[in-house]
Amino acid sequence: MSDFFEQLTSEQRIEVERQLAIYSNGVSEVIPLNELKIKVAKSILKEKPLKIKLGLDPSAPDVHLGHTVVLNKLKQFQENGHVIQLIIGDFTGKIGDPTGKSVARKQLTNEEVQHNAKTYFEQFSKVLDMDKVELYYNSKWLSELNLEDVINLSASITVARLLERNDFSERLSTGKPISLHEFFYPLMQGYDSVMLESDVELGGTDQHFNVLMGRHLQEHYGKEKQIVIMLPLLEGLDGVDKMSKSKNNYIGVDEEPNQMYGKTMSIPDELITKYFNLITDLSVEEKNKISEGLSEGTLHPRDAKMLLGKTIVRMYHSEEAARKAEEHFTTVFQKGSLPDDIPVVEWKGDSEVGILDLLVELNLQSSKSEARRMIQNGGVRLNEEKVSDVNVLVTIIDGLILQVGKRKFVKLTK
Amino acid sequence: MSDFFEQLTSEQRIEVERQLAIYSNGVSEVIPLNELKIKVAKSILKEKPLKIKLGLDPSAPDVHLGHTVVLNKLKQFQENGHVIQLIIGDFTGKIGDPTGKSVARKQLTNEEVQHNAKTYFEQFSKVLDMDKVELYYNSKWLSELNLEDVINLSASITVARLLERNDFSERLSTGKPISLHEFFYPLMQGYDSVMLESDVELGGTDQHFNVLMGRHLQEHYGKEKQIVIMLPLLEGLDGVDKMSKSKNNYIGVDEEPNQMYGKTMSIPDELITKYFNLITDLSVEEKNKISEGLSEGTLHPRDAKMLLGKTIVRMYHSEEAARKAEEHFTTVFQKGSLPDDIPVVEWKGDSEVGILDLLVELNLQSSKSEARRMIQNGGVRLNEEKVSDVNVLVTIIDGLILQVGKRKFVKLTK
Repeated sequence: MSDFFEQLTSEQRIEVERQLAIYSNGVSEVIPLNELKIKVAKSILKEKPLKIKLGLDPSAPDVHLGHTVVLNKLKQFQENGHVIQLIIGDFTGKIGDPTGKSVARKQLTNEEVQHNAKTYFEQFSKVLDMDKVELYYNSKWLSELNLEDVINLSASITVARLLERNDFSERLSTGKPISLHEFFYPLMQGYDSVMLESDVELGGTDQHFNVLMGRHLQEHYGKEKQIVIMLPLLEGLDGVDKMSKSKNNYIGVDEEPNQMYGKTMSIPDELITKYFNLITDLSVEEKNKISEGLSEGTLHPRDAKMLLGKTIVRMYHSEEAARKAEEHFTTVFQKGSLPDDIPVVEWKGDSEVGILDLLVELNLQSSKSEARRMIQNGGVRLNEEKVSDVNVLVTIIDGLILQVGKRKFVKLTK
Repeated sequence: MSDFFEQLTSEQRIEVERQLAIYSNGVSEVIPLNELKIKVAKSILKEKPLKIKLGLDPSAPDVHLGHTVVLNKLKQFQENGHVIQLIIGDFTGKIGDPTGKSVARKQLTNEEVQHNAKTYFEQFSKVLDMDKVELYYNSKWLSELNLEDVINLSASITVARLLERNDFSERLSTGKPISLHEFFYPLMQGYDSVMLESDVELGGTDQHFNVLMGRHLQEHYGKEKQIVIMLPLLEGLDGVDKMSKSKNNYIGVDEEPNQMYGKTMSIPDELITKYFNLITDLSVEEKNKISEGLSEGTLHPRDAKMLLGKTIVRMYHSEEAARKAEEHFTTVFQKGSLPDDIPVVEWKGDSEVGILDLLVELNLQSSKSEARRMIQNGGVRLNEEKVSDVNVLVTIIDGLILQVGKRKFVKLTK
């Protein structure tokens, strides 16, 4: 292979290393890295884009941030001119679960599959340039297989090897039934790679076994073997389970800005860095700065989460939506998070008073102009609602809480 | 079900019991016997023959006596008006072994399959009335199955259940590979029963797992479940392994009478009764008499084997061929089995002498008429060759051996 790399110009070699650094960044595993290097080099030499495969379950069209871990990786390939192959696993979707035991895997109609694919497309377009994506339905080739083909396919793999898959071996040893047809799901997924001659397949670490099957089957059918890139799984809002719709611990890419932001604020502190790294488009430098700030204690976890929420809303909606979501959160969700020890001050002035006068009178600001700036910066709240009008007349009621900046609070009595 | 039997006349009930006694005679197992009784009863009540299935491997057309154990059982069903379904497993034959590891399972062409089926037919006709047999090739339906069908089929069975098959469990535990496609052979065999709606399937005890699969799959596909009749395996000439072509310990139904007879003589004594019981058409009374004779010592094993050989040749050739084979055996193969202590008598008479005179002169027979009867009964041998002509002139040579009956020997010197 050293001969091969000698055909590259030094610029091309630098380009290979540059791409390789991007693709291998933030992943769990590249199997094997040296082959990926060769594929990238060949692609550059022959000006032929690599085919990057991602298989999709047609029954779960709600794309959430867990999916974007892999979408962001696909985007990196796309930005470097490679071709994305999205495969809707409609064949299995149409079969459903033949044992009828799984309610989750119900049989889908053609219309449902089409609809779900469309939904994927819309949601993926938030990350990928969908005009440059190739879409496939695997029923196209899987429905053409007959028993003889299936037997040839099955001859490529041993039962022992299939039983190596974690959930299979566990079920066999604990006496929980594995129906024989379940052995076909990894084989079918792998066969997709044979048909599409994929160069790289992406998958979460829980897909390790299935994604490697593509590599195995390509070899069996005399094709060039795909590279497998395993991506870390993103824990959901509970911080325990993988983000998924069924666990209801997810943030959907289609969710409203306020919901997205609010859900982000609910993640456990220890996940903040991982979320930044895996699902935001911040630069590596920015990500590192946040990570350092958190570990050194100079960045408050809540502030980091607010930045995370704002970043996510900005990515899937807009800058404006992100700002508004933050505002909404601070006005609505920070209610109840007031300090317990707010100093109480008796108000002896008029029962209606301008906000600027009120702030100066209570010594919360040293001047009206300072008070005006503070309001304009969004730093003044009345009963946890942000004050935006510097000329507002405040009606003094018993228990009214004034907040200035993050830490100054006063409760009024009459 | 008691209601059901009440619909039968008492004559019909007797007929049910009569057939049941025949079918269950000499078998290893009937699974389950009570269901067979119901099937037979229904068949009698509705005057509808049962469908009796036997699956055949298209790659081994040399039918041997091991096969006739099951053929004789089929014949019993046929004699009672039921329909025999012979299934040539050509689908698997045409696939061969996709791993290419087994030389034994090479891929067969259509022509080879047809030729082998024809060979089966010819050989089976020695036992069954082939005009009343239905012949099927399972590629007819198996080649029509697509991946979806295969998945539905596979969903009917668990991996644990398949691993219960002796050879699978042994190979898995000893780390010998089981290729996934091997799981399909029992499923395909079982699917044949689904398609043919077989009522009864016959198989050797080594087919226990595969034959029960038909019952299992019929239930899965909502059909009436077949009865399984397991037949004992016939050990081959070595007395150790199951009779099979590959072990070269078999007697083929197409073999020459002399070979058939000679091979039979070579079986170990302890198998004589089993051979009589499983592969001859003698009546139960005759079989029992032989068995008793052997255990009481009144029947010499060699004589029993000669009767066995003669019976087998008579079944697959003719009475005449049987007689000749015995003769040939006694002249050729019994050479060297003469007693060591033959009395030597000096011959002082003519150098040529009539056989009757010779016998009387030597006091081997008391009269010429007695000598004549003995020759006519085949009891006189010269140098181990049976004398059939009472008028033959014997040339006296040194060392000539005369045998009369089983135990009288004389060696002549001049």
